[in-house]
Amino acid sequence: MAAAELENRIRQTIPLAEAMQFHIASMTTEAIEVSAPLPPNVNIHGTGFAGSIYSVAVLTGWALCTHILEVAGADADLVVARAEIRYRAPVTSALECKTLAPAAARETFLGDLASSGKGLIELEVRVGERPSAILSATYCAIASKEDN
Amino acid sequence: MAAAELENRIRQTIPLAEAMQFHIASMTTEAIEVSAPLPPNVNIHGTGFAGSIYSVAVLTGWALCTHILEVAGADADLVVARAEIRYRAPVTSALECKTLAPAAARETFLGDLASSGKGLIELEVRVGERPSAILSATYCAIASKEDN
Repeated sequence: MAAAELENRIRQTIPLAEAMQFHIASMTTEAIEVSAPLPPNVNIHGTGFAGSIYSVAVLTGWALCTHILEVAGADADLVVARAEIRYRAPVTSALECKTLAPAAARETFLGDLASSGKGLIELEVRVGERPSAILSATYCAIASKEDN
Repeated sequence: MAAAELENRIRQTIPLAEAMQFHIASMTTEAIEVSAPLPPNVNIHGTGFAGSIYSVAVLTGWALCTHILEVAGADADLVVARAEIRYRAPVTSALECKTLAPAAARETFLGDLASSGKGLIELEVRVGERPSAILSATYCAIASKEDN
Protein backbone atom coordinates (compact mmCIF):
# COMPACT_ATOMS: atom_id res chain seq x y z
CA MET A 1 0.00 0.00 0.00
CA ALA A 2 1.39 3.36 -0.99
CA ALA A 3 1.80 6.20 1.52
CA ALA A 4 -1.10 8.20 0.06
CA GLU A 5 -3.43 5.22 0.21
CA LEU A 6 -2.56 4.45 3.83
CA GLU A 7 -2.88 8.13 4.76
CA ASN A 8 -6.36 8.22 3.20
CA ARG A 9 -7.44 5.08 5.04
CA ILE A 10 -6.21 6.48 8.36
CA ARG A 11 -7.89 9.86 7.81
CA GLN A 12 -11.16 8.28 6.69
CA THR A 13 -11.44 5.90 9.65
CA ILE A 14 -9.90 7.93 12.50
CA PRO A 15 -11.70 11.28 12.87
CA LEU A 16 -8.88 12.71 14.98
CA ALA A 17 -6.32 11.95 12.24
CA GLU A 18 -8.46 14.01 9.85
CA ALA A 19 -8.81 16.81 12.43
CA MET A 20 -5.02 16.86 12.90
CA GLN A 21 -4.44 16.79 9.09
CA PHE A 22 -2.15 13.77 9.43
CA HIS A 23 0.10 13.44 6.36
CA ILE A 24 2.56 10.68 5.44
CA ALA A 25 5.45 12.43 3.67
CA SER A 26 7.47 9.28 2.91
CA MET A 27 7.32 5.60 3.83
CA THR A 28 9.31 2.39 3.34
CA THR A 29 9.19 -0.71 5.55
CA GLU A 30 12.25 0.66 7.37
CA ALA A 31 11.40 4.34 7.84
CA ILE A 32 8.53 6.80 7.81
CA GLU A 33 8.19 10.56 7.94
CA VAL A 34 4.91 12.21 8.86
CA SER A 35 3.79 15.79 9.27
CA ALA A 36 0.80 17.76 10.51
CA PRO A 37 0.34 21.54 10.31
CA LEU A 38 0.48 23.54 13.54
CA PRO A 39 -2.85 25.49 13.41
CA PRO A 40 -5.23 22.55 14.06
CA ASN A 41 -2.82 21.19 16.66
CA VAL A 42 -2.16 24.16 18.95
CA ASN A 43 -2.62 24.36 22.71
CA ILE A 44 -3.67 27.27 24.88
CA HIS A 45 -0.18 28.80 24.48
CA GLY A 46 -0.31 28.68 20.65
CA THR A 47 2.38 25.95 20.48
CA GLY A 48 1.91 22.22 19.78
CA PHE A 49 -0.76 20.61 21.98
CA ALA A 50 0.70 17.70 24.00
CA GLY A 51 -2.18 15.47 22.89
CA SER A 52 -1.64 16.26 19.20
CA ILE A 53 2.10 15.67 19.49
CA TYR A 54 1.46 12.30 21.12
CA SER A 55 -1.31 11.36 18.66
CA VAL A 56 0.64 12.23 15.51
CA ALA A 57 3.69 10.41 16.90
CA VAL A 58 1.78 7.29 17.93
CA LEU A 59 0.08 7.16 14.51
CA THR A 60 3.49 7.52 12.83
CA GLY A 61 4.62 4.27 14.43
CA TRP A 62 1.25 2.63 13.82
CA ALA A 63 1.40 3.51 10.11
CA LEU A 64 4.92 2.09 9.77
CA CYS A 65 3.93 -1.17 11.50
CA THR A 66 0.82 -1.43 9.31
CA HIS A 67 2.99 -1.04 6.22
CA ILE A 68 5.45 -3.68 7.47
CA LEU A 69 2.56 -6.11 8.03
CA GLU A 70 1.01 -5.42 4.64
CA VAL A 71 4.24 -5.79 2.70
CA ALA A 72 4.80 -9.11 4.50
CA GLY A 73 1.26 -10.22 3.64
CA ALA A 74 0.42 -10.68 7.33
CA ASP A 75 -3.27 -10.34 8.25
CA ALA A 76 -3.28 -8.95 11.80
CA ASP A 77 -4.89 -6.38 14.04
CA LEU A 78 -2.39 -3.83 15.28
CA VAL A 79 -2.79 -1.96 18.57
CA VAL A 80 -0.64 0.18 20.86
CA ALA A 81 0.08 -1.60 24.13
CA ARG A 82 1.92 1.17 25.99
CA ALA A 83 3.77 4.37 25.29
CA GLU A 84 5.90 6.94 27.06
CA ILE A 85 6.50 10.48 25.85
CA ARG A 86 8.95 13.11 27.01
CA TYR A 87 8.38 16.72 26.01
CA ARG A 88 11.68 18.61 25.76
CA ALA A 89 10.78 21.90 24.07
CA PRO A 90 7.68 23.65 22.72
CA VAL A 91 6.72 22.81 19.12
CA THR A 92 6.42 26.13 17.29
CA SER A 93 5.95 24.99 13.68
CA ALA A 94 4.50 21.99 11.84
CA LEU A 95 4.65 18.70 13.74
CA GLU A 96 7.27 16.54 11.98
CA CYS A 97 7.62 12.93 13.14
CA LYS A 98 9.94 10.19 12.04
CA THR A 99 10.87 6.70 13.14
CA LEU A 100 12.91 3.71 12.03
CA ALA A 101 12.27 -0.03 12.28
CA PRO A 102 15.61 -1.83 11.89
CA ALA A 103 15.63 -5.14 10.00
CA ALA A 104 16.23 -7.22 13.16
CA ALA A 105 13.22 -5.68 14.92
CA ARG A 106 11.00 -6.26 11.87
CA GLU A 107 12.10 -9.88 11.62
CA THR A 108 11.36 -10.57 15.30
CA PHE A 109 7.99 -8.79 15.00
CA LEU A 110 6.90 -10.77 11.93
CA GLY A 111 8.48 -14.03 13.08
CA ASP A 112 6.74 -13.99 16.46
CA LEU A 113 3.44 -13.07 14.80
CA ALA A 114 3.78 -16.02 12.39
CA SER A 115 4.85 -18.55 15.03
CA SER A 116 2.68 -17.55 17.99
CA GLY A 117 -0.04 -15.33 16.54
CA LYS A 118 1.33 -12.28 18.38
CA GLY A 119 4.23 -9.98 17.58
CA LEU A 120 5.58 -6.97 19.48
CA ILE A 121 7.74 -4.11 18.24
CA GLU A 122 8.99 -1.06 20.11
CA LEU A 123 9.61 2.12 18.15
CA GLU A 124 11.13 5.45 19.09
CA VAL A 125 9.41 8.33 17.31
CA ARG A 126 11.17 11.69 17.21
CA VAL A 127 9.18 14.90 16.89
CA GLY A 128 11.04 17.83 15.35
CA GLU A 129 14.75 18.18 14.71
CA ARG A 130 15.97 18.94 18.24
CA PRO A 131 13.90 16.68 18.92
CA SER A 132 11.14 18.57 20.74
CA ALA A 133 9.59 15.33 21.96
CA ILE A 134 10.44 11.63 21.97
CA LEU A 135 7.82 8.89 22.03
CA SER A 136 8.68 5.30 22.88
CA ALA A 137 5.75 3.04 21.99
CA THR A 138 5.14 -0.71 21.97
CA TYR A 139 2.87 -1.98 19.20
CA CYS A 140 1.23 -5.40 19.30
CA ALA A 141 0.08 -7.30 16.21
CA ILE A 142 -2.43 -10.09 16.79
CA ALA A 143 -3.18 -12.50 13.97
CA SER A 144 -6.70 -12.06 12.62
CA LYS A 145 -9.08 -14.79 13.72
CA GLU A 146 -9.85 -15.71 10.12
CA ASP A 147 -6.26 -16.97 9.83
CA ASN A 148 -6.43 -19.29 12.82
CA MET B 1 -13.38 29.17 37.52
CA ALA B 2 -16.34 26.84 37.15
CA ALA B 3 -16.12 23.58 35.23
CA ALA B 4 -18.20 24.90 32.32
CA GLU B 5 -16.06 28.01 31.99
CA LEU B 6 -12.80 26.02 31.97
CA GLU B 7 -14.27 23.52 29.50
CA ASN B 8 -15.23 26.38 27.17
CA ARG B 9 -11.78 27.94 27.43
CA ILE B 10 -10.11 24.61 26.62
CA ARG B 11 -12.41 23.89 23.67
CA GLN B 12 -12.04 27.41 22.26
CA THR B 13 -8.24 27.44 22.40
CA ILE B 14 -7.34 23.79 21.67
CA PRO B 15 -8.90 22.67 18.36
CA LEU B 16 -8.35 19.01 19.19
CA ALA B 17 -10.31 19.37 22.45
CA GLU B 18 -13.25 20.68 20.42
CA ALA B 19 -12.85 17.86 17.86
CA MET B 20 -12.89 15.30 20.69
CA GLN B 21 -15.91 16.99 22.38
CA PHE B 22 -14.03 17.23 25.67
CA HIS B 23 -16.48 17.71 28.56
CA ILE B 24 -15.79 18.36 32.25
CA ALA B 25 -18.51 16.51 34.16
CA SER B 26 -17.41 17.57 37.65
CA MET B 27 -14.44 19.38 39.20
CA THR B 28 -13.08 20.37 42.61
CA THR B 29 -9.45 21.12 43.49
CA GLU B 30 -9.14 17.49 44.61
CA ALA B 31 -10.90 15.56 41.87
CA ILE B 32 -12.14 15.84 38.31
CA GLU B 33 -14.27 13.71 36.01
CA VAL B 34 -14.22 14.21 32.26
CA SER B 35 -15.96 12.53 29.36
CA ALA B 36 -15.88 12.51 25.57
CA PRO B 37 -18.27 10.63 23.28
CA LEU B 38 -16.94 7.64 21.32
CA PRO B 39 -17.91 8.56 17.70
CA PRO B 40 -15.40 11.42 17.18
CA ASN B 41 -12.74 9.39 19.01
CA VAL B 42 -12.77 6.01 17.26
CA ASN B 43 -9.87 4.20 15.62
CA ILE B 44 -9.80 1.94 12.58
CA HIS B 45 -11.37 -0.88 14.66
CA GLY B 46 -14.32 1.29 15.81
CA THR B 47 -13.07 1.41 19.42
CA GLY B 48 -11.34 4.29 21.23
CA PHE B 49 -8.36 5.69 19.31
CA ALA B 50 -5.15 5.48 21.37
CA GLY B 51 -4.41 9.14 20.61
CA SER B 52 -7.85 10.29 21.76
CA ILE B 53 -7.63 8.23 24.95
CA TYR B 54 -4.25 9.78 25.71
CA SER B 55 -5.35 13.30 24.77
CA VAL B 56 -8.55 13.28 26.83
CA ALA B 57 -6.66 11.78 29.77
CA VAL B 58 -3.78 14.26 29.60
CA LEU B 59 -6.26 17.16 29.36
CA THR B 60 -8.12 15.78 32.38
CA GLY B 61 -5.01 16.20 34.52
CA TRP B 62 -4.18 19.53 32.90
CA ALA B 63 -7.65 20.88 33.69
CA LEU B 64 -7.41 19.79 37.33
CA CYS B 65 -3.98 21.41 37.75
CA THR B 66 -5.24 24.59 36.08
CA HIS B 67 -8.14 24.68 38.53
CA ILE B 68 -5.79 24.13 41.50
CA LEU B 69 -3.60 27.04 40.32
CA GLU B 70 -6.56 29.34 39.76
CA VAL B 71 -8.18 28.64 43.12
CA ALA B 72 -4.80 29.33 44.76
CA GLY B 73 -4.47 32.59 42.81
CA ALA B 74 -1.20 31.42 41.24
CA ASP B 75 -0.31 32.94 37.87
CA ALA B 76 1.66 30.26 36.05
CA ASP B 77 2.03 28.50 32.72
CA LEU B 78 1.23 24.81 32.98
CA VAL B 79 2.75 22.21 30.67
CA VAL B 80 3.06 18.42 30.54
CA ALA B 81 6.66 17.32 31.04
CA ARG B 82 6.28 13.59 30.45
CA ALA B 83 3.61 10.92 30.46
CA GLU B 84 3.26 7.16 30.23
CA ILE B 85 0.11 5.33 29.22
CA ARG B 86 -0.78 1.67 29.41
CA TYR B 87 -3.70 0.38 27.36
CA ARG B 88 -5.35 -2.61 29.03
CA ALA B 89 -8.60 -3.15 27.11
CA PRO B 90 -10.43 -1.60 24.15
CA VAL B 91 -12.67 1.37 24.94
CA THR B 92 -16.09 0.54 23.51
CA SER B 93 -18.23 3.40 24.86
CA ALA B 94 -17.73 7.06 25.85
CA LEU B 95 -14.26 7.92 27.13
CA GLU B 96 -14.60 8.55 30.88
CA CYS B 97 -11.53 9.89 32.72
CA LYS B 98 -10.97 10.71 36.35
CA THR B 99 -8.09 11.65 38.58
CA LEU B 100 -7.34 12.81 42.11
CA ALA B 101 -4.82 15.30 43.50
CA PRO B 102 -4.35 14.57 47.22
CA ALA B 103 -3.86 17.54 49.56
CA ALA B 104 -0.17 16.74 50.16
CA ALA B 105 0.59 16.72 46.42
CA ARG B 106 -1.28 19.99 45.90
CA GLU B 107 0.62 21.64 48.76
CA THR B 108 4.02 20.57 47.40
CA PHE B 109 3.02 21.68 43.90
CA LEU B 110 1.88 25.15 45.03
CA GLY B 111 4.62 25.53 47.65
CA ASP B 112 7.44 24.78 45.21
CA LEU B 113 5.87 27.09 42.63
CA ALA B 114 5.72 29.92 45.17
CA SER B 115 9.24 29.39 46.56
CA SER B 116 11.17 28.53 43.40
CA GLY B 117 8.96 29.62 40.52
CA LYS B 118 8.45 25.98 39.42
CA GLY B 119 6.13 23.29 40.76
CA LEU B 120 5.69 19.67 39.65
CA ILE B 121 2.78 17.33 40.24
CA GLU B 122 2.30 13.75 39.04
CA LEU B 123 -1.23 12.50 38.45
CA GLU B 124 -2.64 9.09 37.60
CA VAL B 125 -5.63 9.36 35.28
CA ARG B 126 -7.91 6.35 34.92
CA VAL B 127 -9.90 5.79 31.76
CA GLY B 128 -13.05 3.72 32.16
CA GLU B 129 -14.14 1.63 35.09
CA ARG B 130 -11.94 -1.43 34.60
CA PRO B 131 -9.83 0.81 33.94
CA SER B 132 -9.26 0.38 30.19
CA ALA B 133 -6.19 2.60 30.29
CA ILE B 134 -4.03 4.30 32.92
CA LEU B 135 -2.08 7.48 32.29
CA SER B 136 0.68 8.67 34.59
CA ALA B 137 1.61 12.26 33.75
CA THR B 138 3.92 14.88 35.25
CA TYR B 139 2.72 18.47 34.97
CA CYS B 140 5.01 21.45 35.45
CA ALA B 141 3.83 24.91 36.48
CA ILE B 142 6.21 27.77 35.79
CA ALA B 143 5.51 31.17 37.34
CA SER B 144 4.52 33.74 34.72
CA LYS B 145 7.27 36.22 33.96
CA GLU B 146 5.05 39.12 34.89
CA ASP B 147 5.23 37.88 38.49
CA ASN B 148 9.02 37.80 38.69
